[in-house]
Amino acid sequence: MKRTYRLDLMYDGTAYSGWQIQPHSDSIQQIVQEAVRTLVREEVHVIGSGRTDAGVHALRQVAHFRCSKEMDLQSTLKSLNGILPQDIRVTSVLEMPNSFHAQRSAIGKEYHYFICLAPIVSPFERLYRYHFHHPVDLDLLRQASLLFIGTHDFTSFANAAHTGAAKKNAVRTLMRLDVVTLPDGVLLQFEGNGFLYKMVRNIVGMLLDVSTGKRGVADIPKIFAAKDRRLAARAVPPQGLFLINVFYDQNDS
Amino acid sequence: MKRTYRLDLMYDGTAYSGWQIQPHSDSIQQIVQEAVRTLVREEVHVIGSGRTDAGVHALRQVAHFRCSKEMDLQSTLKSLNGILPQDIRVTSVLEMPNSFHAQRSAIGKEYHYFICLAPIVSPFERLYRYHFHHPVDLDLLRQASLLFIGTHDFTSFANAAHTGAAKKNAVRTLMRLDVVTLPDGVLLQFEGNGFLYKMVRNIVGMLLDVSTGKRGVADIPKIFAAKDRRLAARAVPPQGLFLINVFYDQNDS
Repeated sequence: MKRTYRLDLMYDGTAYSGWQIQPHSDSIQQIVQEAVRTLVREEVHVIGSGRTDAGVHALRQVAHFRCSKEMDLQSTLKSLNGILPQDIRVTSVLEMPNSFHAQRSAIGKEYHYFICLAPIVSPFERLYRYHFHHPVDLDLLRQASLLFIGTHDFTSFANAAHTGAAKKNAVRTLMRLDVVTLPDGVLLQFEGNGFLYKMVRNIVGMLLDVSTGKRGVADIPKIFAAKDRRLAARAVPPQGLFLINVFYDQNDS
Repeated sequence: MKRTYRLDLMYDGTAYSGWQIQPHSDSIQQIVQEAVRTLVREEVHVIGSGRTDAGVHALRQVAHFRCSKEMDLQSTLKSLNGILPQDIRVTSVLEMPNSFHAQRSAIGKEYHYFICLAPIVSPFERLYRYHFHHPVDLDLLRQASLLFIGTHDFTSFANAAHTGAAKKNAVRTLMRLDVVTLPDGVLLQFEGNGFLYKMVRNIVGMLLDVSTGKRGVADIPKIFAAKDRRLAARAVPPQGLFLINVFYDQNDS
């Protein structure tokens, strides 16, 4: 009889090829899985709520693994943090019902994207902000952001995943897209029931195109309707993006 | 007729051997000097207000150089930031009277030391905090800190500088040593008319020894009186230390 454990993780994505295990590269999933295997001495598989790309950070990523051992939760937390590099931390270990699956049980996620608009980026923020030193019209940014909220087919704002999977349903619901002004820039807060590959970074690229006058607000509904990735803006770089939280049903979290 | 320029700098010290030029290592002074030489095409020397050690950061370090060219200040700022790596930024360029000398004109400095007392250090703070996961008595910490304020011979809290200079006057005045509690730790703010080599890190080591009960508050006056470095505590690690500001006479700044 296997037991299911949930890991909450926080990581600085700078040094990694992203969450997902890939051959010949340092992925966070691989490093966490190796740490868990070292501890439990079983061939466990660590499954995350979803991938984050190279250079993308997480304040909370959720993962699970199943193993036959009964683990003491507090000592597992300490031991894993002793094994893991300092840029990956486990912030909580929980035992869950066997129905829990970090990816399939997730009902929503929150992402934040940080943009520095100042002429000079602090050395201490260079790996955690997109430096966009162009005049940005915040009213246009807010107007454009409203058009993404709600249920849409996000095909035009999703890249094909590397896995080459067949075209899937691209309808997602964005519950929230808040524009928060910061002393030296702007923070975009996304909350949705699911996110397609590069969706947040593609939307932010579009919002910046509109707020700098490169595109009109009215282009956005047309681009949605065309369902063509080539019509939308380029993705913004990864280092401004943080996975903030993964939501589960109360029964599961 | 040479002109004198003042540079205000901000840097993440993680990747460097410290401020001061040393053979066979990447110093911040060397990199800034090379950037200035590239720009002015003259054999200038960049002089800082003082050294910072490997791994120590600066929110404001001040330096100067003299050169025969008249420089446009705004374009010098932009060009230097274009040449420098992103973990070193120039935040201001000023022309000064020729009497200005970044080190000799300085009348004081401010340093901050950040200690994380939480069980887990955020991956985003790991390079900017000393992780000290032991129970700390903040009352003792405050009591001990008061004994360092004022004018003292700090011989017992100063390491011999690498340069092997003859023993110098070690009397310095600490105007301020504030203990600020943070959500996950404590911040020590030092302001003084001058700091000896490793003085801040040695004092913080002593404060932690006292606040964990390893030493008594009453040991501090005895250690001051003995003028013997071997009696005091070990220096805390560099990554919690930030040079915050360098002060000059109004005539000079």
